[in-house]
Amino acid sequence: MSPYDPGIRLYVDDALAAGAAVTLDADQAHYLRHVMRVKPGETVLLFNGRDGEWRGEIADLGKKGGAATVGEQIRPFTASPDLWLLFAPIKRARIDFTAQKASELGVSGLWPVMTDHTNVSRVNVDRLRANAIEAAEQCARLDVPEVFAPAPLRDVLGNWQADRQIMLCDESRTGVSLADTLAAQDATAPWAVLVGPEGGFSPAELDLLHGRPQVISVGLGERLLRADTAAVAALACWQALLGDWR
Amino acid sequence: MSPYDPGIRLYVDDALAAGAAVTLDADQAHYLRHVMRVKPGETVLLFNGRDGEWRGEIADLGKKGGAATVGEQIRPFTASPDLWLLFAPIKRARIDFTAQKASELGVSGLWPVMTDHTNVSRVNVDRLRANAIEAAEQCARLDVPEVFAPAPLRDVLGNWQADRQIMLCDESRTGVSLADTLAAQDATAPWAVLVGPEGGFSPAELDLLHGRPQVISVGLGERLLRADTAAVAALACWQALLGDWR
Repeated sequence: MSPYDPGIRLYVDDALAAGAAVTLDADQAHYLRHVMRVKPGETVLLFNGRDGEWRGEIADLGKKGGAATVGEQIRPFTASPDLWLLFAPIKRARIDFTAQKASELGVSGLWPVMTDHTNVSRVNVDRLRANAIEAAEQCARLDVPEVFAPAPLRDVLGNWQADRQIMLCDESRTGVSLADTLAAQDATAPWAVLVGPEGGFSPAELDLLHGRPQVISVGLGERLLRADTAAVAALACWQALLGDWR
Repeated sequence: MSPYDPGIRLYVDDALAAGAAVTLDADQAHYLRHVMRVKPGETVLLFNGRDGEWRGEIADLGKKGGAATVGEQIRPFTASPDLWLLFAPIKRARIDFTAQKASELGVSGLWPVMTDHTNVSRVNVDRLRANAIEAAEQCARLDVPEVFAPAPLRDVLGNWQADRQIMLCDESRTGVSLADTLAAQDATAPWAVLVGPEGGFSPAELDLLHGRPQVISVGLGERLLRADTAAVAALACWQALLGDWR
């Protein structure tokens, strides 16, 4: 198998061990039958976020679901870095994009946070999760990002775990150098990247953030980045400087 | 004016100097009239890639075009870093996205290169250019990326300028650390980021690339990145480590 083509990979709930039976849901069965034209007896790759990656032989595919039998293990489990993306919800195409790209870039958690300048009031969490899982299947990671329930930024910060650092993407266009700042940080700590809405954070939110000991402010240059661009750019820089691209 | 909202910005061809008349094309006039509901007498920002940013008062808007009169200068000209993106063309939505994001991330040139595993045979250069210009207008940069005519990768490398470095995004998932490698490079040199197609470069192409003294190979981690994700990620890391985010 080429390193560029992992073939069909499915994220499943069931435990994975040689000989185990795995249940496929109706969407997965439909995807295998009608999109990928897979037939019983053919093999796919299976992962569940805890047991690594295994070969699975398709046993049955029907309208209501399907089943696979687990074969040999292909890769042992390794977790993605403990990195969350906190982002202000944006319109649908861009939120889909953000979830997909963040999953490819290896985040362990996705958290929509409502800010003073956030226009979007409802977030489709199931859709966010589906996009994150689909990207996880395609990018060959062994876990999927956890999707947290949307919450106001103030509440999220009010209950923040003391040791989780926050990389705050400073949209003032005068922020300090990202590379120099991140290079001096603790790569072993849990982290979160926080990207604001396109109207930026409110002055009150910035005061709140800058008062937090966990917040590390970094600049993303003088050009105005869209929120989704800023998220992808910040996550890539974090992986390059502190994450598993090293 | 908030740092987050530059208002309406238009890229124009004409020279910009106080009192000069500037021609707007039919698309710009339509956009101002029917999308932004701008009326004669209102002001926008103008830039042309060489004279900086100027206030412009709309003088006339019609079906075939319009005119503006240049007021005071807002910002002197500064060029974006000398960084090209070379990328294998992909399907339409992703190529639009790549052009938009690369422009936001400050590339000076966009070059579609045909590789052995490139499936797309035709590239709409006008569309690529329109996407790059629209993103340049929105992100407040003072120039627009040059779009080069699509060409085979072999020909591009055959005529390569000796001093332009190439950051090759290594999709083998075993590449060397991007951050450590880039940090040791010459930030004053002209650069190009080269991202392959989703099938990867062919062995012959990799031999050709690795034989070039300008090619610096970097890894983007173990997850399989889509070509458009790899382009955005690589450009962001370049700007953070060698470009104008420092």
